[in-house]
Amino acid sequence: MQPSTIRTATYPAAIFAVYVAASMLLPAAVDLYYANDDWQIFVVCSLATGAIALTIAAATRAPLTRGSTQTTFLVVVLLWLMLGLVGALPFYTASLKLNLAEAVFESVSAITTTGSTVIAGLDTLPPGLLLWRSILQWIGGIGVVALGLFLLPLLKVGGFSYFRVESSDIENRPFERFISFLIALVGIYCLLTALCALAYAAAGMSNFDAINHAMTTIATGGFSTHDASFGYFQGNAVLWVGTVFMLLAALPFSILVLFFARGRLDALRDPQIRLFLSYVATIVLVLAVQRRITTGDPFDDILASTAFNFASIITTTGFASEDYTLWGPFAVTLAFFATFLGGCSGSTSGGIKAYRFLILGAMLRNGLLLLIHPHSVQALRYGKRVVDEEMQRSVVLFVTSFLISWVVATLLLATTGLDFLTSITGSLTALTNVGPGLGTTIGPAGNFVPLSDFAKWVLSATMLLGRLEILAVVVLLVPAFWRD
Amino acid sequence: MQPSTIRTATYPAAIFAVYVAASMLLPAAVDLYYANDDWQIFVVCSLATGAIALTIAAATRAPLTRGSTQTTFLVVVLLWLMLGLVGALPFYTASLKLNLAEAVFESVSAITTTGSTVIAGLDTLPPGLLLWRSILQWIGGIGVVALGLFLLPLLKVGGFSYFRVESSDIENRPFERFISFLIALVGIYCLLTALCALAYAAAGMSNFDAINHAMTTIATGGFSTHDASFGYFQGNAVLWVGTVFMLLAALPFSILVLFFARGRLDALRDPQIRLFLSYVATIVLVLAVQRRITTGDPFDDILASTAFNFASIITTTGFASEDYTLWGPFAVTLAFFATFLGGCSGSTSGGIKAYRFLILGAMLRNGLLLLIHPHSVQALRYGKRVVDEEMQRSVVLFVTSFLISWVVATLLLATTGLDFLTSITGSLTALTNVGPGLGTTIGPAGNFVPLSDFAKWVLSATMLLGRLEILAVVVLLVPAFWRD
Repeated sequence: MQPSTIRTATYPAAIFAVYVAASMLLPAAVDLYYANDDWQIFVVCSLATGAIALTIAAATRAPLTRGSTQTTFLVVVLLWLMLGLVGALPFYTASLKLNLAEAVFESVSAITTTGSTVIAGLDTLPPGLLLWRSILQWIGGIGVVALGLFLLPLLKVGGFSYFRVESSDIENRPFERFISFLIALVGIYCLLTALCALAYAAAGMSNFDAINHAMTTIATGGFSTHDASFGYFQGNAVLWVGTVFMLLAALPFSILVLFFARGRLDALRDPQIRLFLSYVATIVLVLAVQRRITTGDPFDDILASTAFNFASIITTTGFASEDYTLWGPFAVTLAFFATFLGGCSGSTSGGIKAYRFLILGAMLRNGLLLLIHPHSVQALRYGKRVVDEEMQRSVVLFVTSFLISWVVATLLLATTGLDFLTSITGSLTALTNVGPGLGTTIGPAGNFVPLSDFAKWVLSATMLLGRLEILAVVVLLVPAFWRD
Repeated sequence: MQPSTIRTATYPAAIFAVYVAASMLLPAAVDLYYANDDWQIFVVCSLATGAIALTIAAATRAPLTRGSTQTTFLVVVLLWLMLGLVGALPFYTASLKLNLAEAVFESVSAITTTGSTVIAGLDTLPPGLLLWRSILQWIGGIGVVALGLFLLPLLKVGGFSYFRVESSDIENRPFERFISFLIALVGIYCLLTALCALAYAAAGMSNFDAINHAMTTIATGGFSTHDASFGYFQGNAVLWVGTVFMLLAALPFSILVLFFARGRLDALRDPQIRLFLSYVATIVLVLAVQRRITTGDPFDDILASTAFNFASIITTTGFASEDYTLWGPFAVTLAFFATFLGGCSGSTSGGIKAYRFLILGAMLRNGLLLLIHPHSVQALRYGKRVVDEEMQRSVVLFVTSFLISWVVATLLLATTGLDFLTSITGSLTALTNVGPGLGTTIGPAGNFVPLSDFAKWVLSATMLLGRLEILAVVVLLVPAFWRD
């Protein structure tokens, strides 16, 4: 690896850090408005970050060249590392008294849109810090959409590229189309956030709560401004608003652009959307009926809470309106497996994701037919599109690395003395960027405060690994990556 | 599917049932010797089974033809179904008073060499029934070795064929070589059982215990003649004998034949043997050191119990010398993941097995290199042998079906009200044919008695699924299998 490669890869992270520094002025303004002293912390962090970032940017600036594969991998990882560290700065320095492991955990949990928290007492936290948590998730959300549409498919790590979506007319003024697509993407992200905030406010949230929860809903992040998460709010209306917007945010944003900005209804026919909505509907209905039979509670309440809490797990958001682990072993088991699922490619959600299940399913089907008729040959299809060997390999590669990462993270957590259930679900919920695990410590009614610093570092690393679709990080561990 | 195909596939099962009927005379003789009335049950079961089996054999007899792929799949599944049902007959009719679900569970647990039991009070059970449990496991053990060496590789379902092992000189009088190989195989299976029994007796077991435990050790089955399993015996010698023979039985029997019968030392250089022994040694040593640090107990005791209980899990035997789930969360987590591993292809062990991990590892390595250098092409190797596309596909197919089966079985168990831990580990231990799960009910200190009949049926099906490497059963669920 040439030093110039590392320099080229550092530049985008430095530039992005300037924007993050600027965004710190928002919580500063809010704290100033509410007469909270933390506004000074945000201003100092902003200036310091801005100055350092500009210096690094100036030092690493180079003529723009088409980067190699290695450079792109480095850019991705450095961007997220930078975001995690810069985001931690206010947590570390503010009146909260978090140590370094905790500040980084909270920041990484935010930017990876995981939503696990090491802060207890959210209800009495200064508004600036609450808003900073939401802003970080919101930035992380749009960041991961961009990553999933433009960079990861380019690296063959996962998902369907924007360029495929637009393939029909990409050759006609590609740069102009790209910019207009980008503007539409950001516009729709902002529009959905605004609509969600309005709906939350209409359903009874305060304006501050509505804005914060809208940002963390559209990012499928799951940070709340209350320790009780959605348990703080009364009535089913808030739950249904949350459910609808979480599901929307787990759809491919490329397709939302085609649908909203270009009015193309056919875009919604993407097979992953159908599969994703099917498994959400199936799980919610089966569990709601089972709960109705067991408890006899009113079905509209049961349906609202089941839909909200399980859409929250499956979209990898991580809000909870109550402790669903008290719904019995069937609900707990469903919650465990639902943690693996995730939404669609090119969305803000994490997990294995619907398109991978579709491709694995097609591979399974073809493989079984080949066992029965060894000489039959059939192309593997995703919708009408043929899935090439490369795509199949990338899915297998992802799932294998996913499972290995899960095992390693679980064993590391278990060495810290955490019980089995906390270890396997803590590592899993971090890897899939969901948020809550199972058990009394890190379950939907708990938080990550009691864990050791080592466990928090392990989980921070696991969240980053999961957010970058694992492979984008794992390649950096292969010696051949650094050779040339 | 032609009716003649089903007829052709039924014939081998009927013939094999005659031998099983004959083997029922062994426990009859033992019960007669110990003056236990159950001897009459065994004689009646033997005669009834023999008569029915001979009738079916006569009705389905047909000129021997080279069967189609479909026929072979049917033969495999029918053989195991027959063995499970015939084996259950004495449990159902004897003085035990098991219901049908329990009798079938116990028999299927035996023939799949799983070792989970629904009989409490083994210490006071008539000797004939104890011996019948051991005989069924022993038959299941040699059965699965034959299956893994001759049939499953032919069906591309898993493992390395006998014909590959012998490929160098197979063209020279193939039938004679095959028969001599088969005789050597059965000979070594019997020899190992005899040696193991002698070693157990020398280590302090009674003759009856030594013979029974030797049969269930070499089958990596795990049935014991005592409720406390190996906790009944004193001292470390018995544990070390068990450890050594469990590890031997988890090696490929084709390679044991080449080694013992033909003196070919080079056979031991099979990469799966190296990987299998490496993960056993690593897990045992890491856990033993961790236990030594935590407890301060004498290291020789710690090493003996760690080696025995974890070799027992990894080889999918399922003996326990104590409740290792009391060793702390790290041990429990290791036990959970160790349940997936398994031994070598062509052995009596279950699980995912070492050669699949080797192939997945090679796929992962190649995949990562391709991400870094998209135009590099490298053949995928297992040792010196190139792993073709078909073998790779079969591994992916297996692991995918394995995980799906695990999820489905777990959800079914959870619907019966079993807690999460019992559900996920009960289904897993059945699928990998290990034996004990985790938690207070089905853990190493418990048994499967308290489960509902429905749960027992689910687990019986899961054990069969796991034993037949899943795919051999799943193809029968594909409509295309029955067409033509």
